Amino acid sequence: SSGSIMVLPGDHIGPEIVTEALKVLDIVQDHTGFTFHREFGLCGGCSLDKIGDSVSEEVLQRCTEVDAVFFGSAGGPEWGTRQPNPESGLLRIRQRMQIFANLRPCNFTSKSLIDRSPIKPEIIGGVNFTLVRENCGGAYYGNKQETDDYGCDPWQYRRDEVERVARVAAALALQHSPPSTVFSADKANVLASGRLWRRAITDVFEREFPQVPLQHQLADSLAMLLITQPTRFNGVIVTDNTFGDILSDESGGLTGSLGLLPSASLGGPPAVEVLDDVDNSIPGRNSCGGVRGLYEPVHGSAPDISGKGLANPTAQILSLAMMLRYSFNMQEEAAIIEEAVSRVLGSRADGGLEVRTGDLGGTASTREISEAIQSEVKRL
Amino acid sequence: SSGSIMVLPGDHIGPEIVTEALKVLDIVQDHTGFTFHREFGLCGGCSLDKIGDSVSEEVLQRCTEVDAVFFGSAGGPEWGTRQPNPESGLLRIRQRMQIFANLRPCNFTSKSLIDRSPIKPEIIGGVNFTLVRENCGGAYYGNKQETDDYGCDPWQYRRDEVERVARVAAALALQHSPPSTVFSADKANVLASGRLWRRAITDVFEREFPQVPLQHQLADSLAMLLITQPTRFNGVIVTDNTFGDILSDESGGLTGSLGLLPSASLGGPPAVEVLDDVDNSIPGRNSCGGVRGLYEPVHGSAPDISGKGLANPTAQILSLAMMLRYSFNMQEEAAIIEEAVSRVLGSRADGGLEVRTGDLGGTASTREISEAIQSEVKRL
Ligand SMILES: CC(C)[C@H](C(=O)O)[C@@H](O)C(=O)O
Ligand SMILES: CC(C)[C@H](C(=O)O)[C@@H](O)C(=O)O
Repeated sequence: SSGSIMVLPGDHIGPEIVTEALKVLDIVQDHTGFTFHREFGLCGGCSLDKIGDSVSEEVLQRCTEVDAVFFGSAGGPEWGTRQPNPESGLLRIRQRMQIFANLRPCNFTSKSLIDRSPIKPEIIGGVNFTLVRENCGGAYYGNKQETDDYGCDPWQYRRDEVERVARVAAALALQHSPPSTVFSADKANVLASGRLWRRAITDVFEREFPQVPLQHQLADSLAMLLITQPTRFNGVIVTDNTFGDILSDESGGLTGSLGLLPSASLGGPPAVEVLDDVDNSIPGRNSCGGVRGLYEPVHGSAPDISGKGLANPTAQILSLAMMLRYSFNMQEEAAIIEEAVSRVLGSRADGGLEVRTGDLGGTASTREISEAIQSEVKRL
Repeated sequence: SSGSIMVLPGDHIGPEIVTEALKVLDIVQDHTGFTFHREFGLCGGCSLDKIGDSVSEEVLQRCTEVDAVFFGSAGGPEWGTRQPNPESGLLRIRQRMQIFANLRPCNFTSKSLIDRSPIKPEIIGGVNFTLVRENCGGAYYGNKQETDDYGCDPWQYRRDEVERVARVAAALALQHSPPSTVFSADKANVLASGRLWRRAITDVFEREFPQVPLQHQLADSLAMLLITQPTRFNGVIVTDNTFGDILSDESGGLTGSLGLLPSASLGGPPAVEVLDDVDNSIPGRNSCGGVRGLYEPVHGSAPDISGKGLANPTAQILSLAMMLRYSFNMQEEAAIIEEAVSRVLGSRADGGLEVRTGDLGGTASTREISEAIQSEVKRL
């Protein structure tokens, strides 16, 4: 059996770390006998240079046809502020694929990384939530107006756009027993779109997921509480595109290890249990019984260290694990990769190998840490 | 000589802490011979209960006529989610007064409070920036659309709306020598209003404030860096209404002492030097040669502790100091109050009195800490 992946390495460190992550994919392929057909495309600055646009129509089209998209990172100072910018390619892929749920886990890959957080260990230790950001609506898309003296972005939601992302949040909560709490963040006290958000979320949970605890939280207050009481939000946070953009980067700051944070953007709810048969009635399913998705590290293209073999490939490799889990229903293989990463990064005192790149205070090269992870994956 | 203040105590702990702050104002009045004429009004839940609206037309009108507005806090669970909500009164006052620049300082009132921060002292110690949030535009106002299944808030800026808040940020930077850096946060990579923001800010600084260093920062990236490298932003941060709402609450979380954070919303740039004569050509001037403004603590109405005499009046008293500084040009008196607060909260080891309320781990009552501050103000 087989599945298809569109690989978009992007700019600067993107290609360097995508190459390493694909070596881990090779191991999974050898081990499972499942073939991952890969095709490569351009998105970002590299596409701008080649065709004058941040992504081509062919790439956009193929992204909607493959089982998953594996993305590196796009952008860099050499493309300045001109329009279209490198990032617009990614925005257009998100919209074309309708991958409306952007998942960003916030936890510690390895216990020994807790002391790398800027937050005191007694406050941040044990933090474990997944932020689900609406990824195809809000202020990001729609009819923007722009003149030299005026700019307007309609910040808008329809009920069905909120409902579908609510279902993803609920499905994630239901992977735990008892179900985790879902925290929904909005500005219902100020925004019409925020009031619609709150109504739609409330209705979906009451109607379809009465067993999942739901709490509403104002987005500004959440921004404060994430710092002062982060573990209070263990579970799932669901929020709009703009708030999700800010709050997920804030969550990234909490753990203090940007080089470790993966993300997934899904076109439908993940399977609550491993599906034996492809259930085409579930929106967003791909040909492998998983869900269509795009997987990318949270960090950017890091122009300052690109080309030097210093980039940390971990977030890219953990994004690969998310791809296996959500798009290929390979829960076990995903967990094996996560364990391998945890062991490689873990401190010697905890039985880890303590292979760490510069961003984690270590001296390992991209290749050294990648090879350590590969060996661990092979052992498991 | 004299000036006029509209006092809006609001709901729950609002009246309790406003009462204490006004005792400090009495001391300043006795000391300076300057009379502060005070009138009292309703805004928030108390106004909803009395007249069925969150603020009356009379109060709105008087707010535009007085020299300053002194606000407690509005809202509480008893008013539920019905429209208009208690908070809408405050939003309407902001717009009617055109107090477009919301200043929120982020620093430690007293060194000994550094260890109350959730952030490690070596990272957060020495943080000292003022966040200037645009307060009358963006997604907060304008033609909202709302049906049961749809909500839309136009997120819009005109160039002049950005220019005027840029000038406030520049004026604050110019109070230091050499001028502080101004960091402007936007999402120019995604939003049309963000691109307008960046253009307008850039133009104002190039044209009018070439001596003030300006740096642009993406709002999401700022949300992360504020946690990992907060002191990097020492100086002034200027940003849009929505980003400012989130980022200023995040900044509040950084210091970990919500009960200590004051804010000012100004209708024009503060005087760069103390003005001898009233300069009516500067927008937003009041009859005292200061700037029209509204002053309120960052924290809310704390219904859980209201009526118990436990609330920390410090943020309200520090808001009074900001009022004296910006609306009444009383720089010295403002500094005296700030020093008094610092001494009262400071640890004994540092020569402080260590009078602290429950939110700071102490056992003092509202009145005890207020009286301690009053005595210190009298001594200075
Ligand atoms: C690069 C940018 C357009 C993008 C966004 O704002 O969504 C990024 O910040 C992200 O969070 O993935
Ligand atoms: C109460 C609410 C309307 C208000 C806002 O969103 O501006 C508050 O959060 C603030 O920051 O002053």
